[in-house]
Amino acid sequence: MTAAGDRPPVTRWLAERASAIRVADLPPVAVTVARQCILDWFAVTLPGAAEPAVQILTEELLSDGARPVVSLVGQSGRTSAMNAALINGTASHALDFDDVNMAILGHPTVALLPGLLALAEETGATQDDVIAAFVAGYEVVCRTGMLISPGHYGHGFHATSTVGSVGAAGACAHLLKLDAGTTAVAFGIAATRASGLKSMFGTMCKPLHAGMAAQNGLLAARLAARGFTSRPDALEAPQGLAATQSADFHPEEAMREAPLDHHIANNLFKYHAACYLTHGAIEAGKALREKSAASSNEIQSIEIRVPPVVDRVCNIAKPQTGLEAKFSLRLTVAMALAGRDTAGIGTYTDDLTRDPELVRLRDMASIAFVDSYPEAKADVAITTADGRRFTASHDAGIADSDLARQGRKLEAKFDALVGPVFGAATGTLHAALAGFGGDHGVSAIMKLAGRVQ
Amino acid sequence: MTAAGDRPPVTRWLAERASAIRVADLPPVAVTVARQCILDWFAVTLPGAAEPAVQILTEELLSDGARPVVSLVGQSGRTSAMNAALINGTASHALDFDDVNMAILGHPTVALLPGLLALAEETGATQDDVIAAFVAGYEVVCRTGMLISPGHYGHGFHATSTVGSVGAAGACAHLLKLDAGTTAVAFGIAATRASGLKSMFGTMCKPLHAGMAAQNGLLAARLAARGFTSRPDALEAPQGLAATQSADFHPEEAMREAPLDHHIANNLFKYHAACYLTHGAIEAGKALREKSAASSNEIQSIEIRVPPVVDRVCNIAKPQTGLEAKFSLRLTVAMALAGRDTAGIGTYTDDLTRDPELVRLRDMASIAFVDSYPEAKADVAITTADGRRFTASHDAGIADSDLARQGRKLEAKFDALVGPVFGAATGTLHAALAGFGGDHGVSAIMKLAGRVQ
Repeated sequence: MTAAGDRPPVTRWLAERASAIRVADLPPVAVTVARQCILDWFAVTLPGAAEPAVQILTEELLSDGARPVVSLVGQSGRTSAMNAALINGTASHALDFDDVNMAILGHPTVALLPGLLALAEETGATQDDVIAAFVAGYEVVCRTGMLISPGHYGHGFHATSTVGSVGAAGACAHLLKLDAGTTAVAFGIAATRASGLKSMFGTMCKPLHAGMAAQNGLLAARLAARGFTSRPDALEAPQGLAATQSADFHPEEAMREAPLDHHIANNLFKYHAACYLTHGAIEAGKALREKSAASSNEIQSIEIRVPPVVDRVCNIAKPQTGLEAKFSLRLTVAMALAGRDTAGIGTYTDDLTRDPELVRLRDMASIAFVDSYPEAKADVAITTADGRRFTASHDAGIADSDLARQGRKLEAKFDALVGPVFGAATGTLHAALAGFGGDHGVSAIMKLAGRVQ
Repeated sequence: MTAAGDRPPVTRWLAERASAIRVADLPPVAVTVARQCILDWFAVTLPGAAEPAVQILTEELLSDGARPVVSLVGQSGRTSAMNAALINGTASHALDFDDVNMAILGHPTVALLPGLLALAEETGATQDDVIAAFVAGYEVVCRTGMLISPGHYGHGFHATSTVGSVGAAGACAHLLKLDAGTTAVAFGIAATRASGLKSMFGTMCKPLHAGMAAQNGLLAARLAARGFTSRPDALEAPQGLAATQSADFHPEEAMREAPLDHHIANNLFKYHAACYLTHGAIEAGKALREKSAASSNEIQSIEIRVPPVVDRVCNIAKPQTGLEAKFSLRLTVAMALAGRDTAGIGTYTDDLTRDPELVRLRDMASIAFVDSYPEAKADVAITTADGRRFTASHDAGIADSDLARQGRKLEAKFDALVGPVFGAATGTLHAALAGFGGDHGVSAIMKLAGRVQ
């Protein structure tokens, strides 16, 4: 739990890098993925807003009667930017269907975007401003994650919330056009507000953490802009973020020279409404079903090979509830092999866990743990009644290099998630988000997303 | 950084103890000290509200236009309970002149009272309700502090903010009359929001931390009351508060059977506007001046004996600024021996550090560190020109057992601090606070404290 003795100036370096970003300088990949992150964020937030955690939080916060300047996504009310950041952030992580980056070991967009959109709606910033600020925040959140990974998450901190607070401060500071010195102060305010315990997984506090990151970042940037002071070397300082909250300290990773699309190009989207560490095996299972053309009852054995981390995260052998199903490697592979839908948020029901076809496959599956495998890699092998053997492998930790294909998959995900709650207006919102960018503000999109059918 | 293997149910035990407290059952000492804490809180908050950190925060938060239901102490505006908890909490710690408890290694009242008063003003709770809830929160904050002390503070966490969040949740949960199960959920929400880095000392974030604790506790209790979920064993859980944030885990201390005045009777008030760890030596110096009747220029040597912690906290040998003077053991002892005022917040100026009489005494003083001394103990010895030697000792870590004398000192402190900013209304507020308790609400006091002359 100690920082390096010489303590390179990581906080200042990150502040300079983030504050220097201009939209015109962004690599095309960064702009494309940023737009995809924004589309996907609305896809998961609109249905997420109906979850009980979000409804309770909304009732509580809206009781303060704050001036209605920012829209609630997927809800009809409007409130202050601070309240909206917390509520929309919580809504966007409520389904746990939002994007991931392995540099954080967490979820970037749900931490970065809610406060940024709130600030943009209140201030009238352009969509191009939002894209540049989002990429700036993305750099900060991933590099802060690299600074203290994997010890920070491993020790019990929910990096989405903690590291996310610093990233969100970077995004909001960029939108407010703060200079590097003031941005570093914002990082300090965010760092001293950064919290979130992994022991809260499975409770309403998990999605709340995303909202906390968004709100912390927004408040930090706004206070820094007004001259509030903090320690400007909060990441690397003695008794700072790294020293108090991780055994790891990797300034060389945090300050690695790389193009601005280095981290955002590794953004990983979720296409299955289950734990991310089941995704590699699900993809392999789907490939096997296609390759073998075997029907479920022809399958006689299933072997799965994954890294040991899966055992601690999503290896419920005999799930009894829909929630447990999302954390059952065997059952999700069974679903893929049986040709069942793994993407729909309504798929994972208690009844599903008792489906005889799936239970047969589930109980047939054996799991072997391979120490050398990266977190999201899986091999699946099946044998069929006629003695044939098929194998497939997928590493869900590697982003799709075909951005056009990725875009099509995200558009389908958007329509599938938003259509049921948004009805006829889905297409209008979809079109507005597909063309996100340019000199328009975000107000029209935010108001549209607030009007649930 | 591991919790005990068997993990006694500390969270639940604390929730049951706190929620069972009734004002009629409180020992008289607990009621008296609670009333003194409340008086002293207003004494430090009224002038603290003028500090730049508070003014910046107030401008930012009041821009949300929230319904004006709670008063800002020492300021004319009114705002939401959540905003008021953060602003009034920050104001109350801005002068660093508020009370202390060694069980926390931090400041109890600035964490507990701001959210509690905001909630009481909004809901119309009685002053007796506030006293009972304050004692409940005091139990929780000290016992949570004992659970993870001294490693938590030693590692770099500002316990006032972190442990204070849990205590504030206990106070607000009590005022909302939550049952033990719901109170434990509130502790969980507060624990996952608990943050605050000691590296922020010397910046505006230090007083902000007190406000964060107050606001976290208020939000946690209100969300729990509405059915928001968290892990109800957050203090002792794997990857919970203790496991992630301290090498210490002392459930036997946290769950020690003791009367309800056990911790609050050890509340330590500050009578000198300098670092608490100078207070023992200042008191010893004042005693020596009286005992020896020596004028400053008769003193020929000064020897100070303190524990080693003082060297890390307040041993600036040659302070150059008023702020540094507050963290200079030698200079504060020199002030006491020279008969200077050590209580006034306006005393510690840059000019003071250049005063020839004080500089002579300061540079004459030698310091020896005694490993076995408790944190706030000091011995001071002087020799005079005629060869006489005098010694005095004071342990500022032991509360005054004469509560009537303590009360008189606090009343004088109140008048000295509040008079200059509050003018003719000081007496009215003083009288209202001296009689705090009974069936009246807090609204009249809060509104009075909001009207600065």
